[in-house]
Amino acid sequence: MDLIIVLVATRNPLNIGAAARAMANFGLADLRVVKPYEVAFREAVSAVGGAHVLKSARVFETVAEAVADCSLVVGTTAAQRRELQQPIEPLQTGMRRVQEHSGRAALLFGSEKFGLSNDDMSFCHALLCIETAAGTPSMNLGQAVAVCLYEWSRGLADPGAAALRAKKDDSIPGTDAEQMTKMLLEVLEQSGYTNRITSVSTEQKIRRWVRRLKIAPRDAPLLMGVLRQVLWKIGEKK
Amino acid sequence: MDLIIVLVATRNPLNIGAAARAMANFGLADLRVVKPYEVAFREAVSAVGGAHVLKSARVFETVAEAVADCSLVVGTTAAQRRELQQPIEPLQTGMRRVQEHSGRAALLFGSEKFGLSNDDMSFCHALLCIETAAGTPSMNLGQAVAVCLYEWSRGLADPGAAALRAKKDDSIPGTDAEQMTKMLLEVLEQSGYTNRITSVSTEQKIRRWVRRLKIAPRDAPLLMGVLRQVLWKIGEKK
Repeated sequence: MDLIIVLVATRNPLNIGAAARAMANFGLADLRVVKPYEVAFREAVSAVGGAHVLKSARVFETVAEAVADCSLVVGTTAAQRRELQQPIEPLQTGMRRVQEHSGRAALLFGSEKFGLSNDDMSFCHALLCIETAAGTPSMNLGQAVAVCLYEWSRGLADPGAAALRAKKDDSIPGTDAEQMTKMLLEVLEQSGYTNRITSVSTEQKIRRWVRRLKIAPRDAPLLMGVLRQVLWKIGEKK
Repeated sequence: MDLIIVLVATRNPLNIGAAARAMANFGLADLRVVKPYEVAFREAVSAVGGAHVLKSARVFETVAEAVADCSLVVGTTAAQRRELQQPIEPLQTGMRRVQEHSGRAALLFGSEKFGLSNDDMSFCHALLCIETAAGTPSMNLGQAVAVCLYEWSRGLADPGAAALRAKKDDSIPGTDAEQMTKMLLEVLEQSGYTNRITSVSTEQKIRRWVRRLKIAPRDAPLLMGVLRQVLWKIGEKK
């Protein structure tokens, strides 16, 4: 039920401050920043009341590291420009998924200018979009974080979500999903399905597919064991 | 069903820009600004995509003038410091009122530092509050506007609200409510209920009371006629 906010390649430190403030407003504390443009983001003045969130924010080099301990990753998008490989849910539906999740979940926000890249999105189990008026640009980053957290906090009060949360099984965290992705890619490469230099789009496809499977933690050892065995067998034959 | 945003005594022009951007995001265009601290607020850079809203924003000297044509006025408050004279509704309930209203409604936001004054609030039919975590300060102004407009747009999709909107009668606009308030105050003063220099708190009390009555437009002429007659009678006896 923990919700982590991950800001990827944010340009304006004021927006990081604004995200921290919204987190404090809605009772959250775990802010993670991936490759911010401005290293001095902790000086952001718009974090009034969110200073503790900003001070304890952690900086990561990659999205993979930032979400390593998260078993659900949801990306946000304005859904305007790209052909997306994943279906996009409206905010309410996407947040429902977060509310019902019993493990640690992360909400990803891309840069002000470009949003999340296809590579960032390949780490996501789902994508959500705040429905805005036709023809208007995407929302301001700080405002988008506030609106998402409001919807999150609004839905938490719903007794139905709490009941579902209690019943549901958890799924594997980011590190396991990523390890499985890498093993699968190696199997594909070793077996000649892909080239030695695996194309970026295949890597993203496999990564998305592993997240889509929603593998339960108790099934992970078996699957990885199988992959390890296959890899060993292929290696032996060479 | 029109929703107007009124920013009272806003200090930071960036927040006016942020409000304009959120309005554009949710398809609104009528921004009104009462006594802004920074007259050059139209230069606000955070209005990306909301430039047309910012350019056409109107400036007023008083809240009374800003809401003169509005038959529903809802104030926003962090509800932290003051003993309030009006009940405060959570955002969802307060917005429901706006969604169901068939006439022109205004949503009032106070200054970043002090919020709405008691005098500003006396023009309001209702007060609403975004429920945030205990112990955190009020929300950033631009983020609060975005969250309110998200909740407004979210509820508009509800068919129940539309049906109620179609059924409900309108109530009198701000100008009529204010004229009635002034006439009542004069009656109270002429009849010796209040001093010649009416105390500010009595004025606010009467103003709130007139708004609470929810007078229908068809009843306004009768009521004002009665007040006029009483005033004439009192004047004759002197």
